[in-house]
Amino acid sequence: MPQPPASLDLLCLGNAIVDVVAPVTEAFLAAHAMAKGTMHLIDTETAEALYAAMPPGVESSGGSAANTAAVAAGLGIEVGFLGKVADDQLGAVFRHDIVAAGVHYPTPPLTDGAPTARCLIMVTPDGQRTMNTFLGASVSFGEDDLDHDLIRAAKTLYLEGFLFDPAPAQAAFRGAARLAREAGRRVALSLSDPFCVARHREAFRALLPTIDILFANEAEITSLFETDDFNQAAAAARQAVPLAVLTRSEHGSLILEGVAQAMVPAAPAEVVDTTGAGDAYAAGFLAGLSQGRGLAASGWLGSRAAAAVIGHYGARPRIDLAGLAAAG
Amino acid sequence: MPQPPASLDLLCLGNAIVDVVAPVTEAFLAAHAMAKGTMHLIDTETAEALYAAMPPGVESSGGSAANTAAVAAGLGIEVGFLGKVADDQLGAVFRHDIVAAGVHYPTPPLTDGAPTARCLIMVTPDGQRTMNTFLGASVSFGEDDLDHDLIRAAKTLYLEGFLFDPAPAQAAFRGAARLAREAGRRVALSLSDPFCVARHREAFRALLPTIDILFANEAEITSLFETDDFNQAAAAARQAVPLAVLTRSEHGSLILEGVAQAMVPAAPAEVVDTTGAGDAYAAGFLAGLSQGRGLAASGWLGSRAAAAVIGHYGARPRIDLAGLAAAG
Repeated sequence: MPQPPASLDLLCLGNAIVDVVAPVTEAFLAAHAMAKGTMHLIDTETAEALYAAMPPGVESSGGSAANTAAVAAGLGIEVGFLGKVADDQLGAVFRHDIVAAGVHYPTPPLTDGAPTARCLIMVTPDGQRTMNTFLGASVSFGEDDLDHDLIRAAKTLYLEGFLFDPAPAQAAFRGAARLAREAGRRVALSLSDPFCVARHREAFRALLPTIDILFANEAEITSLFETDDFNQAAAAARQAVPLAVLTRSEHGSLILEGVAQAMVPAAPAEVVDTTGAGDAYAAGFLAGLSQGRGLAASGWLGSRAAAAVIGHYGARPRIDLAGLAAAG
Repeated sequence: MPQPPASLDLLCLGNAIVDVVAPVTEAFLAAHAMAKGTMHLIDTETAEALYAAMPPGVESSGGSAANTAAVAAGLGIEVGFLGKVADDQLGAVFRHDIVAAGVHYPTPPLTDGAPTARCLIMVTPDGQRTMNTFLGASVSFGEDDLDHDLIRAAKTLYLEGFLFDPAPAQAAFRGAARLAREAGRRVALSLSDPFCVARHREAFRALLPTIDILFANEAEITSLFETDDFNQAAAAARQAVPLAVLTRSEHGSLILEGVAQAMVPAAPAEVVDTTGAGDAYAAGFLAGLSQGRGLAASGWLGSRAAAAVIGHYGARPRIDLAGLAAAG
């Protein structure tokens, strides 16, 4: 294993998942009672039945915070990731991909337990992705897996809301956030998914006073503050956290920091599969901040990173991102 | 397991492989001493070292004859596949994908042996693919794995030249061809790769009198007949087999049947990754013949099937092919 870096710009904590992506029709979603654009947790049995019903797929490493880590590393900042795979073939794929992306990844694999987590992703012709996650080994990520030195060494700790689903991961989430704050580091939270917000709304709200940067899309932020009105939700977010970054798909993003705000357009892209768009946006934004850019310029790097993943199947870019960061 | 079909239009026999595809630079190929556009066999140790050096990848089912089977099934003919995976996660991925493509796949997995075969595919910016295959479990496919009833039930048996590399598979190849001929069925052979032809030139030539349809690209057919001149090689192929189908990348294909011949253009496509182009062409051509089309129309279906796979990473189409076949 490579030496741990003395300091990191960004440490991401999340579920370690391999995506299985397949194109489906709207009728397929309806037949399987899936709500388009959201994430569902499924058990082993459902995962097997759904996989059997799915068209041929393409496998690639995923996981929300892991995607953010991979993209941010591609943009040139120092990044680490913590999350649990199993000691199996898909775990080896996940490890290879995140390390090859330049991310420091010290978490040892789970042995003799559940297999590596899988997310069965149905992509409809409009490019929207509907996710069905079998958490497998990733539920066993717990407080023991927290690398205290690494958390203290990272300028920003980034946590995915999905971690609230498995109880041991939620404990790790809370422990990591506490360690980071004690070390005077910034803590960022991504709300992940509107259903995830609905499952953990009170816990997320209670957490907000300890969060420095909040990432959410329109469905997530309106769910968090229980309103249908995006502007109301944005106002609440502005009050709740020092820096709120709200993404709105093709309408770009709204960034709120105290009295300052920036409205950033989406970058032009042909939409094939939106999987990972929000993760890539967060990576671009955080890389921008880390490189000393302002809010609008950081948001624009986020928009361009998102555009780099939605033109193909899969959540991570197929191109060298160094040019994006250099282009400013 | 589903009931075996009473009859098949096409039965493909080949290595059962999962592809790991990653974009690389020309310098990466040079640094690893790879000849662009060809296939190399690698051992476990080399596979591990090369995988460690590779950028993040995308996994999808591959294998030359298996690709042909999947595409042909998508074009609406009845198809089976014989080839060996291991009882592991990548083996499950391979099985899922070929069955979900509509292919009958009765070969049981290998237990307690080598893992499922993997092909590490480097795609350069020009879209050319360079393949490094770890044969794993697929080398254990042998004569015992031949499903005699299925071979007799299939109008055409399609064999990939790569099967000549592992000795047990070569025995299975010869056994299958003999069974098919005894049952009065057509036998098709794809030469697979110029290096594979060089390794087995004499054996392939000795086999030609038993072959009804020969598929080869320019590098393969000139290697087979040891000439630099494509026209000479084509003339030799015309003498050697009843039906020779010679593909020439963007220059289309030349189809030779006795005194008849057809020249077929390539179909327009943006080239991202040429992996599987030849396999898809063979699928389209064989599906065309099976549906009663003439040589040129069958070749054109082959050209369009190839175009459907070279616009993205991976060897199999991401779209519903039924429209291609219907469009004539």
